[in-house]
Amino acid sequence: MLVEGRHFLPQADPRALGHKALAVNLSDLAAMGAAPRWALLALALPAADEAWLADFSAGLFALADRYGMELIGGDTTRSPLRTICITAIGEVPAGVALFRAGARAGDDIWVSGELGGAALALLRPQIEAVAARLHEPEPRVELGERLRGLAHAAIDVSDGLAGDLGHILERSQVGAVVHYPQVPRPRAFEELGDPQLEKDCVLSGGDDYELVFTAAPERRPEVASLSAELRLPLSRIGTIQAGEPRLVVLDAGGKPIDYRRGYDHFAPA
Amino acid sequence: MLVEGRHFLPQADPRALGHKALAVNLSDLAAMGAAPRWALLALALPAADEAWLADFSAGLFALADRYGMELIGGDTTRSPLRTICITAIGEVPAGVALFRAGARAGDDIWVSGELGGAALALLRPQIEAVAARLHEPEPRVELGERLRGLAHAAIDVSDGLAGDLGHILERSQVGAVVHYPQVPRPRAFEELGDPQLEKDCVLSGGDDYELVFTAAPERRPEVASLSAELRLPLSRIGTIQAGEPRLVVLDAGGKPIDYRRGYDHFAPA
Repeated sequence: MLVEGRHFLPQADPRALGHKALAVNLSDLAAMGAAPRWALLALALPAADEAWLADFSAGLFALADRYGMELIGGDTTRSPLRTICITAIGEVPAGVALFRAGARAGDDIWVSGELGGAALALLRPQIEAVAARLHEPEPRVELGERLRGLAHAAIDVSDGLAGDLGHILERSQVGAVVHYPQVPRPRAFEELGDPQLEKDCVLSGGDDYELVFTAAPERRPEVASLSAELRLPLSRIGTIQAGEPRLVVLDAGGKPIDYRRGYDHFAPA
Repeated sequence: MLVEGRHFLPQADPRALGHKALAVNLSDLAAMGAAPRWALLALALPAADEAWLADFSAGLFALADRYGMELIGGDTTRSPLRTICITAIGEVPAGVALFRAGARAGDDIWVSGELGGAALALLRPQIEAVAARLHEPEPRVELGERLRGLAHAAIDVSDGLAGDLGHILERSQVGAVVHYPQVPRPRAFEELGDPQLEKDCVLSGGDDYELVFTAAPERRPEVASLSAELRLPLSRIGTIQAGEPRLVVLDAGGKPIDYRRGYDHFAPA
């Protein structure tokens, strides 16, 4: 559910918003290895603004059409705050859906694309190189489907790497070590020269909608071929370990570093 | 999608609200003859109010459990206005789902229960006899399932009889005559003695969540048995006619009467 003033600004580009509202749902399907099929859209608006609706719909349907999704229901109503609630339904063959609970000690931890760009775009709207990461994220649908039978556990990064990987650790009852320098991030951070901001964005920034997954080390060649085939970087950032569900992040010298857990929807604003 | 200040008051009883938020979705499933199976709940709240959440959940799950529904997903987030969006998913055997488009000239028009009570409760909150109609409506789930193969067309009355029956007429490309005195309504209207208010509530009031359906006249005995079996009044209120998709409402003397079409979500408040 996306609420004006919280998830997007009143003046947000409606076409990008239509894309993003569906994309975040497709990202959840991708994280389970599901193929997107149907969507329902509930929309509350302050008034029936036809220009806004036309652009919003164009953005939403461009993405839906790419995956052959059908809009099969929903609701429209009025609210002083624009509110968008999409339910996406997908299909996955019995027995091969990906869950958070499957990670095993010894697994590699992988992440697609780059992390931290969306959070940086929120903090520094003038950096054009990362704006699309925030406003028009690309759900990793093809990757999710191809991870069936390959990944042991998967999740999408919506609330930040530390928090979302933390969900895998809790559900799988395992620990993890992540090597901070190996976490892929946009080049824009180099020019910025603000290590604290960079760390907050890369480890704890939300809204990137990349997939984090774990797989056995002997599958590395397959992951590499998949990366080449999909033309999507897949980076190995750490290892799953036996023990407490705790995430340790190490710097270049192998020293543990502090990090924020992630985004809390009900934390004081 | 239910929005605070529009669909319910800030001080609304959270238990009744949890019931109603799911009930309105079950009503849509019932109108298609579907058996409820799964639900997704997206909830936006100004703060994580545990007492409110406990009561809301109790109301929602009491109804979900009655039909063996599982809550399989959703979202929680923050918004200054409490906002509830439920997606309900049901099952119906192939080929027997009920639609708005199936009404045929000569069909009887039937309605379950009584109409106008919810609208009256909104206008006269002090009349206890109708308060539950507004705050804790009963979705006609069993009736909907039993209408498979019996009704030609069906819809639930969420925006008022005139408007919702109008949807059947438009989709089926037929007309209809409804006999106003035959439309069942709560006794509370008798004591009120306000014919204009009564007509507005009974013909154009929303939120009753009864089913309106059409069926061939030779099925009258079956409809009567079904009514007895379900202990639910089913009243024959008119006839589908060939021609323009227009609804004519007749008074006791057979004279056409004026009525409001129903509720427009984007009409000036």
